[in-house]
Amino acid sequence: MPPMRLAILLGPDLKDALQTDPEGLHDALEEFHPEDIAEIVEDLELDLTLALFRALDEELAADVFERLPSELQTELFEHMSKDRAVELMQEMDPDDLADVVQELRDEDEQLATDLLTRLEAADPEVAEGVRELSAYDEDVAGGLMTTEYLEVGPETKVWQAIERVRRAAVEDGVETIYYLYVVYAQKLVGVVSLKDLILSDNALTLEELMTENVVSVRVTDDQELVAATIAKYDFNALPVVDEHGNMQGVVTVDDVVDVVIEEATEDAHKMGAVEALEEGYLETGVLQMFRSRVLWLSLLFVGGFLTATVMERFSGQLASAITLAVFVPLIISSGGNSGSQSASLIIRALAVGDVTPSDWSRVLGRELIVSVALGLVLGVLGFARAFFAGGPQDDPWLLGAAVSLSTVGVVLVGSLCGALLPLAIQRIGLDPAVSSTPFIASLVDVLGLLIYLTVASLILGLAA
Amino acid sequence: MPPMRLAILLGPDLKDALQTDPEGLHDALEEFHPEDIAEIVEDLELDLTLALFRALDEELAADVFERLPSELQTELFEHMSKDRAVELMQEMDPDDLADVVQELRDEDEQLATDLLTRLEAADPEVAEGVRELSAYDEDVAGGLMTTEYLEVGPETKVWQAIERVRRAAVEDGVETIYYLYVVYAQKLVGVVSLKDLILSDNALTLEELMTENVVSVRVTDDQELVAATIAKYDFNALPVVDEHGNMQGVVTVDDVVDVVIEEATEDAHKMGAVEALEEGYLETGVLQMFRSRVLWLSLLFVGGFLTATVMERFSGQLASAITLAVFVPLIISSGGNSGSQSASLIIRALAVGDVTPSDWSRVLGRELIVSVALGLVLGVLGFARAFFAGGPQDDPWLLGAAVSLSTVGVVLVGSLCGALLPLAIQRIGLDPAVSSTPFIASLVDVLGLLIYLTVASLILGLAA
Repeated sequence: MPPMRLAILLGPDLKDALQTDPEGLHDALEEFHPEDIAEIVEDLELDLTLALFRALDEELAADVFERLPSELQTELFEHMSKDRAVELMQEMDPDDLADVVQELRDEDEQLATDLLTRLEAADPEVAEGVRELSAYDEDVAGGLMTTEYLEVGPETKVWQAIERVRRAAVEDGVETIYYLYVVYAQKLVGVVSLKDLILSDNALTLEELMTENVVSVRVTDDQELVAATIAKYDFNALPVVDEHGNMQGVVTVDDVVDVVIEEATEDAHKMGAVEALEEGYLETGVLQMFRSRVLWLSLLFVGGFLTATVMERFSGQLASAITLAVFVPLIISSGGNSGSQSASLIIRALAVGDVTPSDWSRVLGRELIVSVALGLVLGVLGFARAFFAGGPQDDPWLLGAAVSLSTVGVVLVGSLCGALLPLAIQRIGLDPAVSSTPFIASLVDVLGLLIYLTVASLILGLAA
Repeated sequence: MPPMRLAILLGPDLKDALQTDPEGLHDALEEFHPEDIAEIVEDLELDLTLALFRALDEELAADVFERLPSELQTELFEHMSKDRAVELMQEMDPDDLADVVQELRDEDEQLATDLLTRLEAADPEVAEGVRELSAYDEDVAGGLMTTEYLEVGPETKVWQAIERVRRAAVEDGVETIYYLYVVYAQKLVGVVSLKDLILSDNALTLEELMTENVVSVRVTDDQELVAATIAKYDFNALPVVDEHGNMQGVVTVDDVVDVVIEEATEDAHKMGAVEALEEGYLETGVLQMFRSRVLWLSLLFVGGFLTATVMERFSGQLASAITLAVFVPLIISSGGNSGSQSASLIIRALAVGDVTPSDWSRVLGRELIVSVALGLVLGVLGFARAFFAGGPQDDPWLLGAAVSLSTVGVVLVGSLCGALLPLAIQRIGLDPAVSSTPFIASLVDVLGLLIYLTVASLILGLAA
């Protein structure tokens, strides 16, 4: 395992190695993946990290730096020479650099401005790229894309294009060289893969070779759409255009994998009524964790006051037949559970694009059938439990009927709320995942109580 | 939008085009992405689909065929000539072909055997690859990988390797040509990217050029680990080795994007107490949908009988102070909600590898602090609600104290169950996502009732 060998290498011997054999250390580190080096760097003392960065080639140093947590990036920038910092910035991928600069602005505005001014002087093109990319939100195509890609004219010959690939990879350090985008009058008109290029007759033009129907996304498209498009077509990279169809950048599949994981985590948290966390569970501070939970939990609790109000309304009936109260938790939880099931099915179906709000009538039809069937199964079980429950003053048949009929109603209402509420929330433009399982369950609690207490009072002939 | 133009093209005119201008149709289709053609094919009549497949080049036909639903693949195989079917099979990617064959075996064993025998005669190497890949489960690295990749010896010169890439792409149709894997005595010893290759001196050997610390996975590694590794290192492809380090195949990032989405959907469904579905929400039959929900819902309902049992035990206290019953739904839902929050945080943290079961003591410590703080906030709110609730016979201070103290206890117990149960379930080797939100909520219902009714009975001085 490379990480383990690297850990040993960078352990107690690192200080020695930096002093006695910086050359050897340099060569050894070149062999490792920047991600592995970044993981070790996170646990090093600051002075060792700075020494290590001095020992690395600029390109590898930049690759490692991009992968560090933003607080550490800021700390390193504060302690290394400004010249070295600007060198690193020039070597970074533009999309990563834009992210670093955005974070740096939040943490040390002064330093960010200073470094950007120096970068402007050293390399105006890179500085311009950062400014452009920083203009987009992090969660749209523009915020994900890189401006380093290969752009060629339609008249370019195959041999010229191959030469261009070589130059781009060597001189400009362009990472994504496996597709060439054919641009005419700024418009994206075609795409040629490096594979097609090296397999083709050198004298052909790219216009003759290119695929014209290029799938692309807009700079303002949400990252979920970007991920869905890449997943659908099995692309390694996806071009991004502006509203005029002008080529703006490229999103690569490795960034999309991160997006998909991040979105799934966000949705899972929202479905559990937790505000999305920026960091992992153990990295998030206790206070931050409290904040991410307290608002939703309090809102749900205050919303739950309605259940107490409903219970108060029926306190006469409850007092005259305490057996009625016995089944309150069972009935309302069955509504909450069926609602959670429907909600998790629909929220996920919305997230992956299987269902849209316009499908509401089909969803309604399916949930009606399925939930009545489910309600009947639970109703039979509930009848059996209630039949053997009451005291000597209760009629077991009536009590059984009251519990089983209410169960059918509550499961039906729970499923319909769970399925239709996320659709409605998406329809009005909000994220359906906020109609969390606890939110659905709390809503269904109130409705379930009303159904149960009304149905049971009628069947058992209880007056208020 | 290419799909729209394609839809028009393939509309009423398709039949005409197939008869009058098969050449032109063929050329037009070559311009489109196989995924777009596959989407249209799904809505076509069978005879048109068969005619269309005859009009396509073998390579494009195979690319489209791979993307069709398995029932349609079986139907097409049943209706096209055996020779054409074997031609298609030879053109498919080995990993996709293995999936197709596995599905075909389930649906038409006879046909599967017949086609494999013919494939064996036509191309023994491809048939061998299918047999090897079919041996692995779908959800491990071996089931995801393709056996078509570029393997070279360490002594190979750069110019020979480039020639090998050309040949592989043209003659063998190898898709993943952007990495060359250096293999010595069957062992994976290094990797060289196509980019490094075209930038290097032609006379170098790959041994001099290759990266030796190759990150790889085992054939038996779970697909979640494969996805996490690719995501971590931003790879486009990941080599797969057996237990001896022998090179077996390559997993590409486009397959991993599908895995990540599929796993997130499975987890979301499990967290909502639904059995994972094979197809999308609207594609799944109503009966199948019922089956995916009924078992969990019934189990939770029968488990919920315990709440009725607890209520029966306390029926004396409930009868003597009906105000006690009023707060039952509120208290138990606050436990369920805090449990859902913790569970969604921990289940997701386990899924992305942020937390392992051995972190249980840190998790316990954090949840203790956070949940007591949350419980105090809800306790204050609950006190206010209860203070103004009771009838003339109730002491508002005592009732408020009973509700607020129980709330603190229930939130604490809910959070601890929600956080620790998934860890315990993972520890004993099951999938933590099965400790779904409804499951946690139902467990906490029973515990919450016990806490509330005991605490309240003591504070209010109620005898059984």
